Amino acid sequence: MALIVQKFGGSSVADAESIKRVAARIVETRKAGNEVVVAVSAMGDTTDELIDLAHEVAPIPAPRELDILMSAGERISMSLLAMAINSMGLDARSFTGMQAGMITDSRHGAARIVDVTPGRIRDALDEGAIAIVAGFQGVSEDAADVTTLGRGGSDTTAVALAAALDASVCEIYTDVDGIYTSDPRVVPLAKKIDVISSEEMLELAAAGAKVLHIRAVEFARRHGVDLHVRSSFSNNTGTLVVNETADQTHARIQREMQENGTVEEPIISGVATDLSEAKITVVGVPDTLGKAAAIFDVVAKQGANVDMIVQNVSAASTGLTDISFTLPKADGQRILQSLSASQAEIGFQGLQYDDQIGKLALVGAGMRTNTGVSATLFRALAEAGINIGMISTSEIRISVVTRADVLGEAARVVHNAFGLDGTDAAVVYAGTGR
Amino acid sequence: MALIVQKFGGSSVADAESIKRVAARIVETRKAGNEVVVAVSAMGDTTDELIDLAHEVAPIPAPRELDILMSAGERISMSLLAMAINSMGLDARSFTGMQAGMITDSRHGAARIVDVTPGRIRDALDEGAIAIVAGFQGVSEDAADVTTLGRGGSDTTAVALAAALDASVCEIYTDVDGIYTSDPRVVPLAKKIDVISSEEMLELAAAGAKVLHIRAVEFARRHGVDLHVRSSFSNNTGTLVVNETADQTHARIQREMQENGTVEEPIISGVATDLSEAKITVVGVPDTLGKAAAIFDVVAKQGANVDMIVQNVSAASTGLTDISFTLPKADGQRILQSLSASQAEIGFQGLQYDDQIGKLALVGAGMRTNTGVSATLFRALAEAGINIGMISTSEIRISVVTRADVLGEAARVVHNAFGLDGTDAAVVYAGTGR
Repeated sequence: MALIVQKFGGSSVADAESIKRVAARIVETRKAGNEVVVAVSAMGDTTDELIDLAHEVAPIPAPRELDILMSAGERISMSLLAMAINSMGLDARSFTGMQAGMITDSRHGAARIVDVTPGRIRDALDEGAIAIVAGFQGVSEDAADVTTLGRGGSDTTAVALAAALDASVCEIYTDVDGIYTSDPRVVPLAKKIDVISSEEMLELAAAGAKVLHIRAVEFARRHGVDLHVRSSFSNNTGTLVVNETADQTHARIQREMQENGTVEEPIISGVATDLSEAKITVVGVPDTLGKAAAIFDVVAKQGANVDMIVQNVSAASTGLTDISFTLPKADGQRILQSLSASQAEIGFQGLQYDDQIGKLALVGAGMRTNTGVSATLFRALAEAGINIGMISTSEIRISVVTRADVLGEAARVVHNAFGLDGTDAAVVYAGTGR
Repeated sequence: MALIVQKFGGSSVADAESIKRVAARIVETRKAGNEVVVAVSAMGDTTDELIDLAHEVAPIPAPRELDILMSAGERISMSLLAMAINSMGLDARSFTGMQAGMITDSRHGAARIVDVTPGRIRDALDEGAIAIVAGFQGVSEDAADVTTLGRGGSDTTAVALAAALDASVCEIYTDVDGIYTSDPRVVPLAKKIDVISSEEMLELAAAGAKVLHIRAVEFARRHGVDLHVRSSFSNNTGTLVVNETADQTHARIQREMQENGTVEEPIISGVATDLSEAKITVVGVPDTLGKAAAIFDVVAKQGANVDMIVQNVSAASTGLTDISFTLPKADGQRILQSLSASQAEIGFQGLQYDDQIGKLALVGAGMRTNTGVSATLFRALAEAGINIGMISTSEIRISVVTRADVLGEAARVVHNAFGLDGTDAAVVYAGTGR
């Protein structure tokens, strides 16, 4: 008997009808002879509504209390889902983060899982029941207080349960058919990916692909969990995110392709786009030891995630250089203020802020062994008349910054240049889960 | 430093503004130098809305899941209340039923408290914090599952905390100024009672007085907790429900009255009215041993609470008698069906059902030592032309059944006949707490 963990996001359980539909799918999986554990998010916009309410009573809600408040959302959805399954004649029991043994540190609002002790879940399964677990929430090891895991938390709950229970697979149900070679809303000819290595999935998620949260992919990779990202609106096979190195996956895909008579293996797995970042340029920085460190010290103290960094070669005549970096738009104003306050001390000339940038990232393990990937990328963009602002690379990723208004076109020409285009436009559903 | 437990019902925390108002009152109590523990109900109609949702996904929701679902309501209100207090500069921490050590049996939906282990509450108080506890909910001792205490559950939570923490007083905040000599919506000249013994309060609550739930009064009486029922809309002193025998209270009131030069002590403390019951008459029951027992066996097996029972003297000629009893209207149809099914076995002739009855109860420890109470009652009703259907008495209570449409008038004339009328009409607020 296989053990399957299924995760359903907020849009999949937005109302009574959706809950009944999800319940039917879970019942089907159980009746096919599997043990089933479900991680579920709060219904629809419940969490955002609770946060709004918090801000009505307190300008800066206490983090411990905000976690208790938000955790109510998943208690509602999980108990309703269990009831719905019960009324279809199967035994289903719901469990809070605490009851499921989801033990975390005490960082309220962004807690990390430190241990999973799913004794009650295992007992429920042994008694033939389906276990429904509140996503997104845990209990702190020191104080037995409710914690939440932050954005993407329910994905992480599902993966952590799959790891602790040694599940065959962790199914992430969402409103799209799987992981696409690019965002189908940007690149209509994007194709669904059948299999991708967790290594590449991690790079795609980090580069802005939204379907899977990066922390869940990291967790799956670290604990050897295979993911199956699929649609809650169809029975189609989605995308398998397999827990092997990118090279292993590519070797396997190539072998299968050769067996099938296909000759060419795609070098690039996906093209991610991201419009959520801005660029700050620190102008006229003295090119002396420690200046760059001083700038990024200021940024780090504010807790902002800097992504790409480019330092120009300094002009010999002035001994001054410019340093540019990208960061989430939400952090922009705060970082600008902190840097301004340090201007005299660091001794730079000025600051520029640009929130009209787009980031495009090519991800593919094939680029380790294939030369010419960057040449193809730059040629494709040049032929389309698209200028590149910044470039950064990792072992299996190349990222470039363009103007925001040409990012979509950039993605389409690059997608085409690497032979990723499908023949039909992809189907896009509305809404996103948590 | 005194320890005060305060309970706020759903109508007191119905929206963000109400929550801030309640927070201010709690802050005021803390700043006056008291330790404060608060039991809070779910916001407004939250619980009913959650129950509706449950019935949308499952015709008969599983009791365990329904308890988890409903308990979410108090988690929301308690965390919002704690946030609101925190943002007023005081330390406040919220605790679930489990965290507060509210340990119950496993009767989901109507759990009984078996132990209270408020270690975390005591610690929070010792650290100078205000403790906000989710009303209505507990945790089962066997399975560590969420339980709820049923109607009036938040009152019971407050009283149980007051007992376990040895509080000076348990303040029950509500939408009226206190306990009245009768329901002011029925008897406009009803007066607020300043002091009442828990013994009489218990009789009034059992007879239909709505402000305090009978289980909370029972708990207070058993554990020696004094209650102060007061309005959350004013700072007026409300009604003290003191934990002494009715005779002690009356002796004290009489002593105080004599000291104040008032001569007459009221014999009757209150007049309760109740329109929620119906009457079933079992017609033509053979007057042989065990027939009444057989009838009430059938009723008891259905779990209905029978209140008044009257058996007519049997007619010598037929050897048959009629047995009438009152019970909650909600149980009426179910009990009728069960009795019908047993008709042949028990051998009665028929059943009559009457849901147009009203119940009026006089409560007062003074009737122990004052003769003529029933005479005054019957004369007052007779002069108003009101017929009495059934009569039952306890040591400090007389109950009569009237037609439903004259119950209000009955209450007014009786209230007047016992000298309870005040000079001004009572103020009535809208809404009720849980």
